[in-house]
Amino acid sequence: MSSIGEIILQMGRQARAAAYELAKCSSDEKNAVLRAMADSVRAATPRLIAENAKDLEAAREKGLSTAMIDRLRLDEARIAAMAAGIDEVAALPDPVGQVIDSWQRPNGLRIEQVRVPIGTIGIVYESRPNVTADAAVLCFKTGNATILRGGSEAIHSNVAIADALASAGAPAHSIQLIPFTDRESVSAMAKMDQWLDLIIPRGGKGLIETVVSQARMPVIKHYDGICHLFVDRAADVPMALDLVIDAKTQKPGVCNALETLLVHRDIADRFLPAAALRARGVELRGCAAARAIVPDMAAATDDDWTTEYLDLILAIRVVGSLDEAIDHINTFGSHHTDVIVTADASAAGRFLREVDSACVFHNASNRFADGGEFGFGAEIGISTDKLHARGPMGLRELTSYQYRVHGNGQTKAPVLPLG
Amino acid sequence: MSSIGEIILQMGRQARAAAYELAKCSSDEKNAVLRAMADSVRAATPRLIAENAKDLEAAREKGLSTAMIDRLRLDEARIAAMAAGIDEVAALPDPVGQVIDSWQRPNGLRIEQVRVPIGTIGIVYESRPNVTADAAVLCFKTGNATILRGGSEAIHSNVAIADALASAGAPAHSIQLIPFTDRESVSAMAKMDQWLDLIIPRGGKGLIETVVSQARMPVIKHYDGICHLFVDRAADVPMALDLVIDAKTQKPGVCNALETLLVHRDIADRFLPAAALRARGVELRGCAAARAIVPDMAAATDDDWTTEYLDLILAIRVVGSLDEAIDHINTFGSHHTDVIVTADASAAGRFLREVDSACVFHNASNRFADGGEFGFGAEIGISTDKLHARGPMGLRELTSYQYRVHGNGQTKAPVLPLG
Repeated sequence: MSSIGEIILQMGRQARAAAYELAKCSSDEKNAVLRAMADSVRAATPRLIAENAKDLEAAREKGLSTAMIDRLRLDEARIAAMAAGIDEVAALPDPVGQVIDSWQRPNGLRIEQVRVPIGTIGIVYESRPNVTADAAVLCFKTGNATILRGGSEAIHSNVAIADALASAGAPAHSIQLIPFTDRESVSAMAKMDQWLDLIIPRGGKGLIETVVSQARMPVIKHYDGICHLFVDRAADVPMALDLVIDAKTQKPGVCNALETLLVHRDIADRFLPAAALRARGVELRGCAAARAIVPDMAAATDDDWTTEYLDLILAIRVVGSLDEAIDHINTFGSHHTDVIVTADASAAGRFLREVDSACVFHNASNRFADGGEFGFGAEIGISTDKLHARGPMGLRELTSYQYRVHGNGQTKAPVLPLG
Repeated sequence: MSSIGEIILQMGRQARAAAYELAKCSSDEKNAVLRAMADSVRAATPRLIAENAKDLEAAREKGLSTAMIDRLRLDEARIAAMAAGIDEVAALPDPVGQVIDSWQRPNGLRIEQVRVPIGTIGIVYESRPNVTADAAVLCFKTGNATILRGGSEAIHSNVAIADALASAGAPAHSIQLIPFTDRESVSAMAKMDQWLDLIIPRGGKGLIETVVSQARMPVIKHYDGICHLFVDRAADVPMALDLVIDAKTQKPGVCNALETLLVHRDIADRFLPAAALRARGVELRGCAAARAIVPDMAAATDDDWTTEYLDLILAIRVVGSLDEAIDHINTFGSHHTDVIVTADASAAGRFLREVDSACVFHNASNRFADGGEFGFGAEIGISTDKLHARGPMGLRELTSYQYRVHGNGQTKAPVLPLG
């Protein structure tokens, strides 16, 4: 095995040992460490800025875009916000130890289903250095040990942040950052299912594909958001217009932004919001029926139905029925967040039941698909998977459970004396 | 792509379409189909026995053991039991549609977290043909479409059972059995994550390893049960003896049977239950300290701590403390089911919190780790994974959830008129 592989395996063993120490910590103990982490990040501000400058310099040399460089940047305000975020996590309720369910069996056994940490979590991410703090802190709050593997662009910043977190009194190896940024380090993590209980990739498709194809442990993916809004024939037109404008333009570069607008043909004439969207800089690409109504619209191709633009572009399709809308979403969507606008409760009910997506909304903007907007207090991401965690993932989704059973000597069958 | 691969891909597409039809079915509709499935299995009794005879004949020709052949056998009583089991599943409550949680946000959005089917589930299994009915029926009850891939030993029986189930009025392709039994068919399933949401391997280590190393979708494993019972120094000796006898001898060939007995050294002299176990045919293998007390015991090697005997063999280790017992279990166990016997509530509390296993019991036999004993009504298996489902898996664990959000036009930001 390569030396990188050996180092990462050793980090895995250490993470497991740290997880067992963390399982013994009370909520108060963990929260005290979190507050110390926030202080430690604040105290490290000069070092963080100096290390971040090295990443920014390298980014400029590599010719990264201004937007990319801005995402990398740490300044006093961003570091203060990072520390404040840690204090906020400290103040949230701890899901660990919560009794999810409990019941007694006729034989007297008392069964409790109790939330426990997952154990050890690998986070593989790219670009923004604040993910180092965000992810590690949420995992720590829930009693999990983390192994972080960030991207090369932010390596100096990531090392400095991880150092600041790890020096705040947490059990040894609770938070470890892999000092390598090549793909081999991801492969090494993906293989060690004896030491990592879960791996969460956050980043582009290439990164996620590498993790999915190699991982032996469970993966929770945060894939594309190809989100739809369906304007039913019974929609309130001004409401539908506001929702489309909000979902498409309020922040187009995020996963819960609108990408494809579906319009019932009975309302298309009255509704198609070309002027309002174009006035806000949105490029429209429509199916033949949409272009029959708005003739100067570009033609959408099949690729448009499966593209996450993350930009001021909107694909538009006129559909003949609710069924056709549901079928389009289930076929071409990414099962993230889809909306129906309608005053028809029965159409809304069918849409919510039959659309196979993490979040299905009636008369609300797609942009509310977010842990903060759901009231979770903190969010590790939005899962497009169906197992364990679906949709916005808060602290609760970073836990597993355990059955604790209390008896007084029950045996499955009577134990008879021999003889 | 091979023709086997193409056929399995086509089955995947059909399963997805079936899942969308199943999502529309009410509980009453599904239960009526389940009762028809039970009738269909009863009506197919002569065919099932005739097809099963081909498997039994092949098994005899291959020289399979008497025990293996008995596991394969279908007779009238077993077919009646299979059908009765389906009727029992029909009578259980349906978790689909259950509102897990609901709350209102300050902006008026009403958020519901609702149980929904997972979608499509692949089951890969070996040997016993009744798994065909058990697994397919539990998945159907929860609105999931299944693709079953059984082993070659039971292929004729499996095909006949799947035919009987599929002819009972379920939506087309709700239950499909792969007609191939080679490893290539498992690989083809493992790759098609666009069509299969989950894969559950039930069988030996080789089969599970194939699935884990190739699967792109989530896998829920039912691995070994290397289960422990720790007799603490504050144990009630007669209770501990009964629990050890029950856990080791009541049914030694199952995953929740006891494999390693840990005994606190302060009680070892008084407790070590050599005579009682030997009188029941149990072979003992002990550490040096155990052999100092029971000199004619065989020596345990390191392999014994990680072996699932599934037989009347018990490994015994004397430990110096509760910590040493917990450490042994977390290091060598399979995180399935572990027991402490003690009258000391504080020792029990630490054991339950710090042992990293799906089921942790205080003063009860390991043998109660079972969906039936937990009151789940039905069980698809016992998960040794930590994500999504841990420990006994009932109907609830065959569901996912979806966030359904009800608004009245909420936008993330005010939509201002242009001008």
